[in-house]
Amino acid sequence: MTSASQAMRTAAKGTLEVIAFERGPRTSWAACGLPYFVEGLIPDHQKLIARTPEQFAARGIEAKVRHVVTSIDTQNHTLAVRDLTADVEHTEVWDHLVIATGASGITPPLPGIDANGVMQLRTVDDGIAMDEAIKSGARTAVVVGAGYIGIEVAEALVARGLKVTVLELADQPMAATLGPEMAEMVSEAMISAGIDLRLGTAVEGFATDADCDLTAALVSGGEIECDIAVLALGIRPNSHLAGDAGIELGEAGGIRVDDRMQTSAPNVWAAGDCVESLNRVTGQYGIYALGTHANKQGRVAGTNITGGQATFPGVIGTAITKFQDLEIGRTGITEAEGEAQGIRTAATTARSRTKAGYFPGSDPVTVRVIHSRDDGKILGAQIVGGEGSAKRIDVFATAIWSGMTVDDLAMVDMSYAPPFSPVWDPVVFAASMAAQGRS
Amino acid sequence: MTSASQAMRTAAKGTLEVIAFERGPRTSWAACGLPYFVEGLIPDHQKLIARTPEQFAARGIEAKVRHVVTSIDTQNHTLAVRDLTADVEHTEVWDHLVIATGASGITPPLPGIDANGVMQLRTVDDGIAMDEAIKSGARTAVVVGAGYIGIEVAEALVARGLKVTVLELADQPMAATLGPEMAEMVSEAMISAGIDLRLGTAVEGFATDADCDLTAALVSGGEIECDIAVLALGIRPNSHLAGDAGIELGEAGGIRVDDRMQTSAPNVWAAGDCVESLNRVTGQYGIYALGTHANKQGRVAGTNITGGQATFPGVIGTAITKFQDLEIGRTGITEAEGEAQGIRTAATTARSRTKAGYFPGSDPVTVRVIHSRDDGKILGAQIVGGEGSAKRIDVFATAIWSGMTVDDLAMVDMSYAPPFSPVWDPVVFAASMAAQGRS
Repeated sequence: MTSASQAMRTAAKGTLEVIAFERGPRTSWAACGLPYFVEGLIPDHQKLIARTPEQFAARGIEAKVRHVVTSIDTQNHTLAVRDLTADVEHTEVWDHLVIATGASGITPPLPGIDANGVMQLRTVDDGIAMDEAIKSGARTAVVVGAGYIGIEVAEALVARGLKVTVLELADQPMAATLGPEMAEMVSEAMISAGIDLRLGTAVEGFATDADCDLTAALVSGGEIECDIAVLALGIRPNSHLAGDAGIELGEAGGIRVDDRMQTSAPNVWAAGDCVESLNRVTGQYGIYALGTHANKQGRVAGTNITGGQATFPGVIGTAITKFQDLEIGRTGITEAEGEAQGIRTAATTARSRTKAGYFPGSDPVTVRVIHSRDDGKILGAQIVGGEGSAKRIDVFATAIWSGMTVDDLAMVDMSYAPPFSPVWDPVVFAASMAAQGRS
Repeated sequence: MTSASQAMRTAAKGTLEVIAFERGPRTSWAACGLPYFVEGLIPDHQKLIARTPEQFAARGIEAKVRHVVTSIDTQNHTLAVRDLTADVEHTEVWDHLVIATGASGITPPLPGIDANGVMQLRTVDDGIAMDEAIKSGARTAVVVGAGYIGIEVAEALVARGLKVTVLELADQPMAATLGPEMAEMVSEAMISAGIDLRLGTAVEGFATDADCDLTAALVSGGEIECDIAVLALGIRPNSHLAGDAGIELGEAGGIRVDDRMQTSAPNVWAAGDCVESLNRVTGQYGIYALGTHANKQGRVAGTNITGGQATFPGVIGTAITKFQDLEIGRTGITEAEGEAQGIRTAATTARSRTKAGYFPGSDPVTVRVIHSRDDGKILGAQIVGGEGSAKRIDVFATAIWSGMTVDDLAMVDMSYAPPFSPVWDPVVFAASMAAQGRS
């Protein structure tokens, strides 16, 4: 919908007709807000709807919900659409096509996976269903996966008073995000919140009663009784529609696009969770399913469709979340990612505080900087700490983006006042420690 | 004291003797914390002491308080010191000398300026005196100057229940810091807090009673009754000791140093509020009296004294503060500064929110970006907004430091999650708007 809006904005007035098809019942919902809706912080799910079909219509964009595109013909510039309400299919023609099919939660083919009570949290309806389940008396939950969504859902369910078990195959939470010593702080916070965190534990299936209602999650050597189970195993790009149309996919399974967001087919563009993005640190393409990238990519596609020249320069893996009061930010690569890419890294951990030590509300913050052993270039950073910690990751993101070394960053004129940081801001302090380690 | 500590750290063990002389009774106090001590947020002034003479002694550094250096002989490598307690003077020899004499609050020669109740807030004793005055019954205050210290002191006095008038010569608060439209939000917050903010108003003197106790501040055509008056008119570097010794001073009145923090005299170094720093945006030297610079400069001097090679690369005018819940950050140059320097600037104001609009605690934030009209390089930024606003200035600082354009910054992979920002972070949004304005 961002590409639609941008194209409508940049096109000469009256020259563009835009039709959007959406399988579900809603347009433009804030998926990232769903855990906080479940938590009860956002009382009305309508607040998560950025724009309704009616609002798009007012901009001249026809958004048809409950319509699923079943095939694309890139030669004849047509596509087949099924109206799920009327249950009829028709053919639509296009001059330009934007594929923005998003991603789906990974659903492993386990026994009982279709049981009532086994849930995901991808759509507004998912959120409403989870909220209803809790209102209807769910008291125990198993969350499968301790990545971003896993810990956000766990926070929400704890806040709603459920007894929560989190199963994670890796031996740490946020294994793709944080190094082990940083993840340890996340584990501690989860355990302190009363979560039964089971690391190195795979879910093997789900037990059900005669009504196919969930009764327990099955793990090696036992079962964990639960009223609901939430799958938070990551996502896969919805690229089969493009793939079936002969559009090139990448090795990570997403649609391959150039930096103008054009696919391998002329006048076919793609944006959002369904595409692969170039990681500027590793030089590799991967899936980085985040609203920020989707918005930028959509804007780039919309601009280019109407004859503009915009490019999406790639990503560096920046992400942020929190578990209760513990904030978590990361950007660039971890040491493990560096090792996998054959990059010689060095890492420094700097423990500091969010505000001047004497200022009320000053909290511990730990910053880990990963830099090139060869030239000191910053390659990654992770931040875990109290209020005001995680957004500092943007400084590292900007530094990585512009090719700064730890020595450079250690001298940047960053802001200081007691309510906001110690004299040595945690970012400067960490860069400074890393620079000293190099000299 | 930072240079002393750094030199002690980097010197070969047992090779260095360090003596420090301090006019006052304390070493290493956190001057920036004083308004918050007065406000009552930091109950004990001892919390503001980073390190006592005893703690320095444990590191092998002799810190002599109540000792004032009265002259420096750069030829014979000596200095004259007066012990204020014993009232005796002696001569000290040195191989290396670090001048870190700081700055003093500007005290205009006005009638009544020496009255009891006319105060500053530079030292711990100043803070204690202000706290005592309030405890002794001061109920009304006039703050002279609406820069950083002025608004921080005003916040503190309002919090302590005083009726506060702020006099400011300029027609806006923070005139050296913010452009007029950004300053307007600060004015509104001050007025909402019950402050009588009088812009375009000079203090002409102070009325006193027979005991020389303050009774009122005098302004054109009237007087403002007050129990205390706080001078917050900015600072002047304490450079006369260096100047008298023939050490080169700059046009802004501070000690001129090279990027190794060496003065014009061999083996004489200087650091902190008494020196001039190079502004990397304007290429001009100026006074940037902040603890961050002082700490970095001290560390550079300490490293170089012991044979290391460290440089201080300059400043870009980053600063941060708050008035109650309104956060204020700035970096680089304002449009007025650009005009004064003959730099062709363009500016964009972007209104956004600190968190996703639907997330509890989401506050308005206004970002103003100043960039080069010629090449789009970011030259400055100002941020005014609710909780979580001001520290975002560090992203702009890092971008300016590395020479980024608004187009570059608009595409940086910055973090997003609903508790931390909208999908378009206010910084990205502002850069993006500025970039669109260019194309």
